[in-house]
Amino acid sequence: MGKVFEVKSKDEFSHARTGVLETAHGEIETPVFMPVGTRGSVKGLTPEQITETDSQIILANTYHMMLRPGADIVEELGGLHKLMAWDKPILTDSGGYQVFSLSTLNKITDSGVEFASHIDGKKYILGPESSIEIQNKLGADIIMAFDECTPFPCPEERLKTAVNRSIRWAEQSLKSHKRDDQLLFGIVQGGIDLALRSGCAEGLVSMGFPGYAIGGLSVGEGHKNMIETVNHTATLLPEDKPRYLMGVGMPPDIIAAVKAGVDMFDCVLPTRNGRNAFAFTQSGAVRLRNSIHTKDSSPIENNCDCYACRNFSRAAIRHFFNVGEMLGPTLVSIHNIRFFQRLIASIKERIKDGSFSSWADKQVEKYQKCGLCRDF
Amino acid sequence: MGKVFEVKSKDEFSHARTGVLETAHGEIETPVFMPVGTRGSVKGLTPEQITETDSQIILANTYHMMLRPGADIVEELGGLHKLMAWDKPILTDSGGYQVFSLSTLNKITDSGVEFASHIDGKKYILGPESSIEIQNKLGADIIMAFDECTPFPCPEERLKTAVNRSIRWAEQSLKSHKRDDQLLFGIVQGGIDLALRSGCAEGLVSMGFPGYAIGGLSVGEGHKNMIETVNHTATLLPEDKPRYLMGVGMPPDIIAAVKAGVDMFDCVLPTRNGRNAFAFTQSGAVRLRNSIHTKDSSPIENNCDCYACRNFSRAAIRHFFNVGEMLGPTLVSIHNIRFFQRLIASIKERIKDGSFSSWADKQVEKYQKCGLCRDF
Repeated sequence: MGKVFEVKSKDEFSHARTGVLETAHGEIETPVFMPVGTRGSVKGLTPEQITETDSQIILANTYHMMLRPGADIVEELGGLHKLMAWDKPILTDSGGYQVFSLSTLNKITDSGVEFASHIDGKKYILGPESSIEIQNKLGADIIMAFDECTPFPCPEERLKTAVNRSIRWAEQSLKSHKRDDQLLFGIVQGGIDLALRSGCAEGLVSMGFPGYAIGGLSVGEGHKNMIETVNHTATLLPEDKPRYLMGVGMPPDIIAAVKAGVDMFDCVLPTRNGRNAFAFTQSGAVRLRNSIHTKDSSPIENNCDCYACRNFSRAAIRHFFNVGEMLGPTLVSIHNIRFFQRLIASIKERIKDGSFSSWADKQVEKYQKCGLCRDF
Repeated sequence: MGKVFEVKSKDEFSHARTGVLETAHGEIETPVFMPVGTRGSVKGLTPEQITETDSQIILANTYHMMLRPGADIVEELGGLHKLMAWDKPILTDSGGYQVFSLSTLNKITDSGVEFASHIDGKKYILGPESSIEIQNKLGADIIMAFDECTPFPCPEERLKTAVNRSIRWAEQSLKSHKRDDQLLFGIVQGGIDLALRSGCAEGLVSMGFPGYAIGGLSVGEGHKNMIETVNHTATLLPEDKPRYLMGVGMPPDIIAAVKAGVDMFDCVLPTRNGRNAFAFTQSGAVRLRNSIHTKDSSPIENNCDCYACRNFSRAAIRHFFNVGEMLGPTLVSIHNIRFFQRLIASIKERIKDGSFSSWADKQVEKYQKCGLCRDF
């Protein structure tokens, strides 16, 4: 087996880099933004429409897929790629985040978590062995070690216990992993405690994962804390392995994290905000339910090449939201995903031509000023 | 201006024919099925997806568009084609059907109907002049005369009054019509009273419309009554003008009406049923919420070339409905519209090759037996 990840170009003035990650369903050029298909569908879009946004890889949630339709059924149907009609790369998370945030927890032990489904209260146990077994059945190209996710803020002792448990679970995840066509990533936890992050990174790196995630951020700690933690943690991870910042995020978060050396991102905001008529643009948020758009014949964003902007006026999209037509959420979700992919394309281009670092600082400042990051 | 409608081939054993109808946004090959975009959107589909089903023309409802966003706004935005991002032909109805079925009626007079909007109770008046003025503003390629729609069953006197009023309104509609890039069709009313149908048809034909609709059917009279009325009425209409059976319908209704000489159809069933997980197939209805599809890896319909059938299993679609993902309604709506367009394609092909008439009788019988027409 050849090299899984190769750094292709490095920014001279920061840790930013471009690279290529090889998976069972094709190559991914990094930095990469992954739209989220929570329950096997990126909300409001067909796979054809996702492809048109230039997305290379999508994410599905192990927690949701294990509850409905269930991992055995997905496996029987030929795996996630078949179910989702998506033959490019897929990543599944471990289920940990949802178990800790959505379900009713009954018991956390060293072997896993007993929880009650948020849908029907049915009891499940999820731990490193079962999460990996389920992810092996789902068949994504990249899968994640099972980890304990802590809220923000989190008492020091609890954070420490969780980090130590996550390190043990990472090792058990690695041992349980059965398919060599799936890349298993370890997840560095530790909140915004840099010493804990160091310890966790050290522990995981010694296990030799093909990629590493930074988890437990974008949970309320704010841009400054997040980027401080990412700056610290990214440098602890091997240069020649992909780095994935989970659940992030807003454009300035992504730009600053790329600068810190992060390669992969996922976030529900493009689709969640799209369903709420909130569009991302380079000059800030556009709220399409606003009556100022009633007669606005301009597209969501000038010079955007997405299907929505090429064909529909803000007035038309406002009308679709106003009367409750699905077309509204679909169009704004398409635009928002394309917005993120255009942002990533700019980032890649500027890393390659050497203009990334100074541009990045200005972009972060611009997006923070324009109000795109407020209200969250 | 050349001929608007040309009959291209005739069936030897029935009144069925193929033709070409010329509009400001291109030619329509008939028989034709028009998906319904009630409020400016064919529910769940983008215009790109509608085009992929091979639909040539779509319908929008004047009543809904006049309430939201309003005819003046649609006009200011460049008309319906622009708003809907659809540069092929569009047909608008007169608003009559919805005024009589959805709104609270206050007063019917010879000059029109005073009604309260079903959305906010606001008062409106709609009559032949205002309906045509609104349709001129909306800018569809084919527009409809304003008519009085009666329920089924309907007392004889009321039916008679309504028919006479519809004839007068047709004439006023014709006089009010200002745009020669829009074809104004007259609508024959009369319930299932064949004598009233004859009188109405005679009155309208003498006015010289470029096309004629048969209205007031598919309101509960049943297949037999409907087809008897269509058989009677179609022959009263000029051979060289297009005939449009409004709001119809189920596959056997369409096939039998083509046999009677009808050229145009519209119906909400493909999308309405699609949203309810009800799929049309040649072997009957498939209800995709049914648990028998939980592990069903086959497509909705074998040999169907639609996007849903080429990519998704019944099990996947059932899952999307089960977890409430928009992708479910979208996929089944795409399939259902494509099903109707494939049916129309078969009809056209068989009219051209002379095998239509005997095939049609078998098809009507088959669809009636297979249960596709029950439950409505």
